[in-house]
This record gives sequence, structure tokens and C-alpha cells, in this order.
Amino acid sequence: MSKSKIVVSGYYSTKFGELWNRSLSDLIIESVEGLLVEAKTSLNKVEAIFFGNMLSGILENNLHLGAKIAEIFKLNIPIFRVESACSSGGMAFHLAYNYLKANHLKNVLVLGVEKMTDATTELVTHSLASAASGMEQEAGLTFPGLYAIIAQNYLTKFGYTEKDLAQISVKNHYHGSLNDKAQFRNQITVDQVMNSQYIASPLKVLDCSPITDGGAAIMISSEPKNQKIAEILSTETATDTISLTARESLVSIKATELAAKKAFAIAKIKPKQIDIAEVHDCFSIAEVLALENLGFVELGQGAKFDNIKQTYLNSKNSKLPVVNTSGGLKAAGHPVGATGIKQIGEVYLQLTNQAKSRQIKKAEYGLAHNVGGSGGSSSVTILSKNNT
Amino acid sequence: MSKSKIVVSGYYSTKFGELWNRSLSDLIIESVEGLLVEAKTSLNKVEAIFFGNMLSGILENNLHLGAKIAEIFKLNIPIFRVESACSSGGMAFHLAYNYLKANHLKNVLVLGVEKMTDATTELVTHSLASAASGMEQEAGLTFPGLYAIIAQNYLTKFGYTEKDLAQISVKNHYHGSLNDKAQFRNQITVDQVMNSQYIASPLKVLDCSPITDGGAAIMISSEPKNQKIAEILSTETATDTISLTARESLVSIKATELAAKKAFAIAKIKPKQIDIAEVHDCFSIAEVLALENLGFVELGQGAKFDNIKQTYLNSKNSKLPVVNTSGGLKAAGHPVGATGIKQIGEVYLQLTNQAKSRQIKKAEYGLAHNVGGSGGSSSVTILSKNNT
Repeated sequence: MSKSKIVVSGYYSTKFGELWNRSLSDLIIESVEGLLVEAKTSLNKVEAIFFGNMLSGILENNLHLGAKIAEIFKLNIPIFRVESACSSGGMAFHLAYNYLKANHLKNVLVLGVEKMTDATTELVTHSLASAASGMEQEAGLTFPGLYAIIAQNYLTKFGYTEKDLAQISVKNHYHGSLNDKAQFRNQITVDQVMNSQYIASPLKVLDCSPITDGGAAIMISSEPKNQKIAEILSTETATDTISLTARESLVSIKATELAAKKAFAIAKIKPKQIDIAEVHDCFSIAEVLALENLGFVELGQGAKFDNIKQTYLNSKNSKLPVVNTSGGLKAAGHPVGATGIKQIGEVYLQLTNQAKSRQIKKAEYGLAHNVGGSGGSSSVTILSKNNT
Repeated sequence: MSKSKIVVSGYYSTKFGELWNRSLSDLIIESVEGLLVEAKTSLNKVEAIFFGNMLSGILENNLHLGAKIAEIFKLNIPIFRVESACSSGGMAFHLAYNYLKANHLKNVLVLGVEKMTDATTELVTHSLASAASGMEQEAGLTFPGLYAIIAQNYLTKFGYTEKDLAQISVKNHYHGSLNDKAQFRNQITVDQVMNSQYIASPLKVLDCSPITDGGAAIMISSEPKNQKIAEILSTETATDTISLTARESLVSIKATELAAKKAFAIAKIKPKQIDIAEVHDCFSIAEVLALENLGFVELGQGAKFDNIKQTYLNSKNSKLPVVNTSGGLKAAGHPVGATGIKQIGEVYLQLTNQAKSRQIKKAEYGLAHNVGGSGGSSSVTILSKNNT
């Protein structure tokens, strides 16, 4: 490996799900200890930690979690908590990468953990709405409502139906059935999605990602001990208005477009070269927009079944990347602060041939895409297989 | 200026106080617009923003504030929210500096804002306790209680009295009387401190920093437009256990010692060379520990009146830096996320001869010191006058 390369040198995630017997601390400990084994290193080689978490302040009155992590592991190193709603994990990774670069460090650990299921669904839904603008909150809009507005606009503008959106959830549940860390491992049908209860029309419960507990951790290294590494070609972020009403378009996430454009330019590759992508499918419509805004398909083509079926594991003659082999947020689950880390971790597993029964055949380049709120922030990370 | 220098090229803060007619957004807008004037630049020259804020999630159900800032100023640049309790501002500055370095940027804006006085004192006190461990919260310990334990230990161990601590508040109110942005501009006496109500023995209300609204912003630049610049020699952070009970010492803040040691080593100067220091006096005892842990005086010497009087503006034959010319957290106020930015900003004003009636005579080197919680995190930044 050339000296200048910065790589992912290990990844671990806890089981995602309703983990009622596990605390935030339990998930932090399992994530970090699991990672150290995978990355074949020890805590005294870690020079800084970045921690992605959204809701512990609101749900548990727990802030200052950098110091909590310091206490758990008896550390005095720099530890930073980063919050950007559902893109907290992706942002933490982005800042960790830049911190390693600025300080010529050898190992920086990125951790994302969220403990959500101890609170009532009403409280969690209200708390998640903290990622929307005050005006949207006062109007009673929750996240299903905001994405329902996007979905309504998209279906109307491009002439698709709810059945088209349902295909996304069906695919992601199929992939999730192959991931032993996923919250949901049951396969579902289009009929099941169509018959599930409306949450915010046109989105039904099986269009929506669940409320999840979970932790994930990644090691970023300039001098990895582990042989299983994937090179970080680029990690870029962008922002946009927190409110939907202030946006130029309701059928496109500008923050994703901008972050992707920068990330592809720096990685010096094109979207068609990506073999595996983990994209932010908090709702089925969100994956449709991601396919378009990341440059995999043209605007208005993301909900086409002909395209969606090309994003399945082992699809024949596909011109598109396999998308969300982890099961995505929909089936793997969405422990908010951990999601962005899990996405990059899944890409790493694929590029290092560790994805077991969901391993894709050809994995040269992978992309992870993490969105905050209804698109107010976005991060895009591109990794490549290690060829040296 | 040499090409490799990274400098503070401007600073602005709002008035600190009980700003009942100002919202979080109002304070964000005033801070950023004020800074652009001071730094003689415009928003389209700003390449990233780091935002320090502790409590908006808990107090206002507002997270994802990077996207709120993007909306206010019609930006799509990377914006990051950093939280480390009361050291959120110092940590945001530290990460901003490293981000500029890693990406060879020209201008990164660091913003800290906190809007606290709309909530009841009970709610704010409970929310601030989110920076303590769960065990401490369950024991009913608030921050005055935690620092009271430190103060009790300190006074007993080194043989000081409450009157000795009172001198810190008297000095900081004197300095605050010279700062037109300070929350409290009244001078106070030792008797007034001694006769003020106990909050948590031995700390009385006049030993404690207040609850404050306010915003502050700094521009970090590698190619400044402004002539008034101060060089960033170092910015370092460290962590320690979130719980007091898990600490090695109750009379010393290890995170500060470690951050200071690194910061002085990188700056290649010694504590005695510092002319002006803004230290974290959330309680009178905290400034005493800061004087010791930053290396200005020996352990056990920080509460000596002979030392405290040397930290006054215009003290004769002083061997110590002038400390907290802004009035410190005690008199200038403590809008949590803004505090770390204001501290660095005050040092910048002193080093660029812009501190008006509180300007110190000789200002070559300055230090800013920001603490999270009861010492679970700490950041130390050293600036120097521009000599080129």
C-alpha cells in the first residue's frame, strides 16, 4: 500500500433491532470492542474518536458523550460528538477522515450509536422532527409527512404509482434476509407493502424504515495492521435548506447532488463505475431520489422497475450498482447515529470480500450515501478495493 | 505573513445576557453578519462552518442546525454541529482549524450560539446536568453540586477559605465592568460574594456563572483579507471521565493539564510567556484550578490572593497573565456553545489591540481555555500577535 493512502481497516456493528436489554453504553462497548478485533489493533493505538449520535440529549438527557466514552475505555484522547440528524454518522466519518489527514495520524475510530426503543414511539417521532424546521414542526409535520410530500410530488410529476415505490422495500427486505445483523430478515411482497397501513399517504408502514437500537464502528487508518482494507477515495458533504418549502425542487435532494458531484470528482471515477452502493432509504421514495441524485439513473427514472431490478444482488446484465445489500435502512434498521457508519461498513465488507451470503461478485468501487432530515445535509463516501 | 500561517482574521459577539426578544436564529444571524464586517469578507468566501451548541435539542427540540444555518444564509457548503457540553465552542474551533488544514481552505467560520433564558431555571439546570454521568444525575447532582465537591476538597486540602474563592468573582466583575458586551457590568465586593445565597456549599450565587443567551463567531483564515490578525500557534483537546467519582484527583482537571501540555509543546512557548488568558470560570473554583492546571501557578497556589491580584488588568510587577479580561463566564455570561468562541475572540481582540478600555499593555501571546462539564473534556488554544 502506498504511504499516502488512507483506508478503512476494520468494521463492526452490533445486531440492529429492538434491543430492550441493551443500554447506550452497552452498544458503545460492543461496537468498539468488536471493531478492535476486526481491525486487529488495540485502543492504545487509537489517536482520536469521532462519535455520531442524534437523540441521546433529548431522549436520555445525556450529552457530553465524548467524556462518557473516555470514562468507559479509560481514555484521555480527543473525542468529538458530531450531530447532523440522520447523517450524523456520515458527517462523523467525514470529519474523522479530515482530522487524520490534518494531523498525520495512524488510527482514528468512528463510532455511531443510537438507543431509540426505550422511549415511546410518539416521543421518538417528536424527537426525530427536531431535524425539521420550527415551522414544519409547528405545522405538525413529522418525517413520514415530509417524505410523503416529496413522494406525492414525485409520483405526480413522473407518472409512477405506489406499487412502483413498493419495489424498493421488497428488494431491501430480500437483501436484509441475507444479513444476520438486520432488524428485519423476512422477505415481503408488493402486495404486503400495498396492504400495509398508511402512515402519510402515499407512504405506508412498509415504505418506512423502523425505529432501531444499534451501534457501528469503523477504523480509519494510514498505517493499518489489518490486511483487509479498502481505500477511501473521497468523502464529501453538502447542506441545503432545513425546510422543504424553501427548496428549489421537491423531487430532488440538492445536498446529495452536490456532495456526490464533489465526491466523484475527487475520486476520479464515474457513477457507472460503482459496483455497490449503500444509499439512504429512510423511506422508499428516498432510495428512488438517491439513485437519481447520485447519478446512477436520469431524473425521473429511479422508480422504474427495470432500474430497481438491476440493483438486486446477482441481477443479470445489470448496468447499475447493487444497492443496499445490508437491507438498507428499511430492513437492516435505522439507529440514526449508527446508520452512516453501517453504510460505509457494508461497502467495506463488500470490497474486502467479507459479506458472506450477500457478497457481490465484482466489487471494485463502492459508495455510501447518508442524508440528514428531509435533505438538509448529505454525505457521500467512495471507497475502492485495495489493489496493492 | 508567511504562507503556512493560519490565523484568526476576525471576531464578533452579540451582547450576552437575558435576551428575551432574540431567538436562536436572531443570534446566529447577528453573529455571522457581524463577523463578516469585522473580518472584511463575505459569505461566498466562507468554505465551511463549524457550529458549537449544547442545548437546542433538549430546550427547543431543534437539532440538525447545520441545515438551519444553510437555510438562513442560502448556503450549500459543509456545516458541522459539534457538541461537548460547555466546551462545544472550543471543540468547534479545534475541528474547524484542523478542517481548514486538511483541505487547504482559505476561510472557515466558527460559530457558537446558545439560547437559554426562554426555559425555566429548573429545566436549564436539569438540561445542563446532561453533561454529567447518569449516576451523578440520578444522585441529584447538578453542576453547582459537582463543582462544590471540587471546591470542598480544594479548600480542605490546601487550607483556603470561601473568602479566597470570592476574590475570583470580584476580579471578573471588575473586568466585566469594562466590557460593553458583558451580561453583568456591576462591580462587586468580597462581602457581597460572602453574603450571597448558598447554591451548593461552599459555592454561593456570586461564585457561579449565570444562565445566558448569546452568540459569537470567529473567522479562521489562511489568506486573510483583514489586517487585524492573530496567529493560531496551537489548539489541542483532551478528555477525562465524565464522572467525578472515577477521577484520580478531585482538585485537578486532568483534561486541562493534558490539553495544555500538548498546546504549549506545539506552540513552543511556556506558560510564563502568556500575557492574556481567558479561562473557564464557570464557578470561582474552576478559575483557581485553571491557573494551576494550565501551568501559570503551582498546584495549591491558585487561590492565593497574591496570585489572583496579579491576574488583574494593569496589575503592577505581575508575573502572571491577565486573566479573563472579558469578565469571564462569571461576569460576561455563559451562553454555553458561544463561550469557547468568545474566549478565543477576547484573546484575539487583545492581541490585535481592539479591546478598548480593557486593552492590556503588552500582548504578545494569549491562551483560551474551555472546559466541558466537570472536566470531562477540555480545549486549550494559544494565539500570538502578528509580528510580520
